[in-house]
Amino acid sequence: MPHMQDDFPLLMSTLYDHGVRHYPDQEIVSVDSDLSITRTTYANTDARIRRLATAFFERLGLERGDVIGTFAWNNHRHHELYWATANTGVMCHTLNLRLFPEQLVYVINHGGDRVLFVDENLAGLIAPIVDQLKTVERFVVMGGNAADSGLPDPLAYEELIDGLDEHGPWPQLDERSPLMLCYSSGTTGNPKGVAYTQRSTYLHTISCLANFPILATDNVLPVVPMFHASAWGYPFQAVPMGAKLTYPGPDLSPEGLVKLFLDEAVTFSAGVPTVWLGIQQYLDANPDIELPSMRAFLCGGSAVPRAMTDWFWKNRGIRVVQGWGMTETNPIASVSLLMPWMEEWDFERQLDVFETQGRIVPGLQYKIVDEFGEELPHDGEAFGELLIRGPWIAAEYYKDDRTEQSFVDGWLRTGDVCKVTPEGYIKITDRAKDLIKSGGEWISSIDLENEIMAHPDVAEATVVGLKHVKWQERPVAFVVVREGATVTADDISEHLADRVAKWWLPDEIVFVDEIPKTGTGKFDKKVVRDQYADLLM
Amino acid sequence: MPHMQDDFPLLMSTLYDHGVRHYPDQEIVSVDSDLSITRTTYANTDARIRRLATAFFERLGLERGDVIGTFAWNNHRHHELYWATANTGVMCHTLNLRLFPEQLVYVINHGGDRVLFVDENLAGLIAPIVDQLKTVERFVVMGGNAADSGLPDPLAYEELIDGLDEHGPWPQLDERSPLMLCYSSGTTGNPKGVAYTQRSTYLHTISCLANFPILATDNVLPVVPMFHASAWGYPFQAVPMGAKLTYPGPDLSPEGLVKLFLDEAVTFSAGVPTVWLGIQQYLDANPDIELPSMRAFLCGGSAVPRAMTDWFWKNRGIRVVQGWGMTETNPIASVSLLMPWMEEWDFERQLDVFETQGRIVPGLQYKIVDEFGEELPHDGEAFGELLIRGPWIAAEYYKDDRTEQSFVDGWLRTGDVCKVTPEGYIKITDRAKDLIKSGGEWISSIDLENEIMAHPDVAEATVVGLKHVKWQERPVAFVVVREGATVTADDISEHLADRVAKWWLPDEIVFVDEIPKTGTGKFDKKVVRDQYADLLM
Repeated sequence: MPHMQDDFPLLMSTLYDHGVRHYPDQEIVSVDSDLSITRTTYANTDARIRRLATAFFERLGLERGDVIGTFAWNNHRHHELYWATANTGVMCHTLNLRLFPEQLVYVINHGGDRVLFVDENLAGLIAPIVDQLKTVERFVVMGGNAADSGLPDPLAYEELIDGLDEHGPWPQLDERSPLMLCYSSGTTGNPKGVAYTQRSTYLHTISCLANFPILATDNVLPVVPMFHASAWGYPFQAVPMGAKLTYPGPDLSPEGLVKLFLDEAVTFSAGVPTVWLGIQQYLDANPDIELPSMRAFLCGGSAVPRAMTDWFWKNRGIRVVQGWGMTETNPIASVSLLMPWMEEWDFERQLDVFETQGRIVPGLQYKIVDEFGEELPHDGEAFGELLIRGPWIAAEYYKDDRTEQSFVDGWLRTGDVCKVTPEGYIKITDRAKDLIKSGGEWISSIDLENEIMAHPDVAEATVVGLKHVKWQERPVAFVVVREGATVTADDISEHLADRVAKWWLPDEIVFVDEIPKTGTGKFDKKVVRDQYADLLM
Repeated sequence: MPHMQDDFPLLMSTLYDHGVRHYPDQEIVSVDSDLSITRTTYANTDARIRRLATAFFERLGLERGDVIGTFAWNNHRHHELYWATANTGVMCHTLNLRLFPEQLVYVINHGGDRVLFVDENLAGLIAPIVDQLKTVERFVVMGGNAADSGLPDPLAYEELIDGLDEHGPWPQLDERSPLMLCYSSGTTGNPKGVAYTQRSTYLHTISCLANFPILATDNVLPVVPMFHASAWGYPFQAVPMGAKLTYPGPDLSPEGLVKLFLDEAVTFSAGVPTVWLGIQQYLDANPDIELPSMRAFLCGGSAVPRAMTDWFWKNRGIRVVQGWGMTETNPIASVSLLMPWMEEWDFERQLDVFETQGRIVPGLQYKIVDEFGEELPHDGEAFGELLIRGPWIAAEYYKDDRTEQSFVDGWLRTGDVCKVTPEGYIKITDRAKDLIKSGGEWISSIDLENEIMAHPDVAEATVVGLKHVKWQERPVAFVVVREGATVTADDISEHLADRVAKWWLPDEIVFVDEIPKTGTGKFDKKVVRDQYADLLM
């Protein structure tokens, strides 16, 4: 017998019940595939979630531990699937809409998805690969006319849950049982899966809430997709606190998002930098549009441009808070919040903080190490690979023998090279594999590309290290010029001259129409490196 | 191999390291036994905690799992003992200064304390019982001159930790290992112990922070003793968040506390109603004293008078937030926070909310049941015993065969009889054993005594049910008249006539000089019942 109820499992259903019990009338607003709006409440959604849970077992023949796939935008049905799986112990495999068909086939087969839930306007992406799916038994179409989906023997979601009894009290699952399966779209080889457990997601949820609260007065709009590391956990964080949720559906245009922000009085949103850059541009062109209800954006996924953070604060009074994490960290691991005494600083100095990836969330442990695994000081100068561990960090890749490369002695190797300031702010210098080793010294490809992108006529730039006979590797920049602008390699070099050490200057500056990107919209440096492998040889 | 790092233990040392790492310069202020003030920082305290941890093993010969006892006020050395034990897996048994000598002997022997840490000005309470202590090997005296303590072969705390190496990284303990032993001073029989585990205390800490945050900008002064359910967990909550801590030592007078509130700019404090009633009286007599930095008091331990909550808000702009818990709930289980829409209500209506014991903290589950164990509705009318369960609730009493009476099918029987409103606010009606059953109907002794205490000439009142031939039980009131006032039984009856049902009126109103109290200052109704058992027969 334990002294305390240490056998009482940490289950998402406990947090779910708390939210629904206390905030039955809180709203959930959702943009559907056809851009119509569904407006509902926690209580009504609860009834649908309980009918969906019943459907899992009684109509779809699923058992606890089975996997369903979702291929959907951020919308209320996706929300229902999140919670119906989390509450019952069915695993929810959120499929990335942006994967290539062969990757989709791989992850669905590898995950062993038995049923696929597909938004009606996305069915066209699944229909062509149906024959290659080995484990899928049924397709459920969400919204629209299922019969027109092009999927074999489709079930309509609304019919599936219609007329069923509501699932009763949620089961007491093992806290180590998985509730969600997310694949990280690595740039090499097949995607690698991470199976979030009840315990890890519970601890992520409650620890993030203690670190950077969502309140019952908030209206949370996750722009970050629900197929991308559980929309950074916001559907899980909002419900226990009784916050309003606004799901934007397929329209992620600046106009569409800004309209929703205004119509629904959104207070908090989260997404990658390109989303906010688009919104900045739109608001800049529409100076009359204020966003009075918005208090902050969480921004992550790649480095947040300082100028953008500056712009939103000075022009709209919105704080852009940088967060950092990975699929393997379920996902939020650090947030760039100010320490109390920094609130007094002038904004330029605060921007130095907002430019970092922030401080680690309480509950996690981390260190930076050199190439021999030796721990480095947190002096803001030394940089090494970030290693992280804690109760919501992955311990393995799902049924994958690539686990060994990334997990060492209980630590996750993040592959990110970082400095840490004495105050504990983490600043990513580069991806370990993108650092450029020139004559025995390291050059940060990210620092270089940020400096190039600071040039007003540059739209996008990436820098990679290419093989060099004398120096081993040398940096080469690939630049997309802003529409209507003209810029030469000399202009860029001159722009860089004051900003970086002379030996960092790229050996070549190549102008391109487009930089190849990965499934999650990041620069695909591997493709660039492969394509230009012999440029300097 | 688990999917996520579900084997990574939930340890207080992880939260501790987070706070000390990020807030080394945060202050800890402490009033010593001689009323002098010690002013130190997290970093300096960390060095002392690490030397104390070394002393446990190298000088005191303790092993992990051994028990030390503390007999101390709220001060910085007590804080050091809290964390040195929590971080190393030594158990900290916090001894209640207000226990009777025979109870002290019982709990020290029952806990198996090997070393006692005693404040110098409390040594006189331990010296007379030394011969009866069976397990204590050493006495450590905190502050002052150890040699004068009257304890056998005493060690001075400062000498104990002097010159030692600082303990290195904290051990990876089992999350189910106990870190603290607290005895609940039941009114019947010997005190019952509860052994808080790492996991339960971690989850209490992080869940309370998510529910009702302490911030790095806060300065927390726990008036609630560190020997009483870990000062409601505030020493554990403050450190991870980097909040300033102010420990009041032995001077808990209104003057002493108010001076500290002002000198140290305290923002948040916690204690029982009598503390705040004293402060209210003091401030009422000193209308020039404002408390501009104070944002809220957490108030619990017994019902919070509505008039007091009203007074502090209207006269000093301070919110009195009612909390509820027990030693068995480690200890906070509910907090009377407003829901967002209630912020718009007028204050009278808000007082109805503040008068409740609040809503349960996310992570716990509860129900109210009738005498047959049947669940009752949450309609604000039905009342029954509150049952509670969750990851920071006790599962047993420590080495005690009285566990069975209080724990049923994984639920803790709180012994409190409650109503629950549709919004989930819990309102305690009475202790189950104090409810009065008159002719088959229930009368709440607490409601009755609150109504009597609302009479301006009444200082204190308690109501008990005494045996009655016809009605089985009938209420009898025991009243202490306010100094200088005169009041008759008829005055009281008249005062009650408009406030309670006629059949609730006490059969007798007995005027007394003093009402017997328990070790924690609550009315000891058992003593009253025993003394007057035959009054109505």
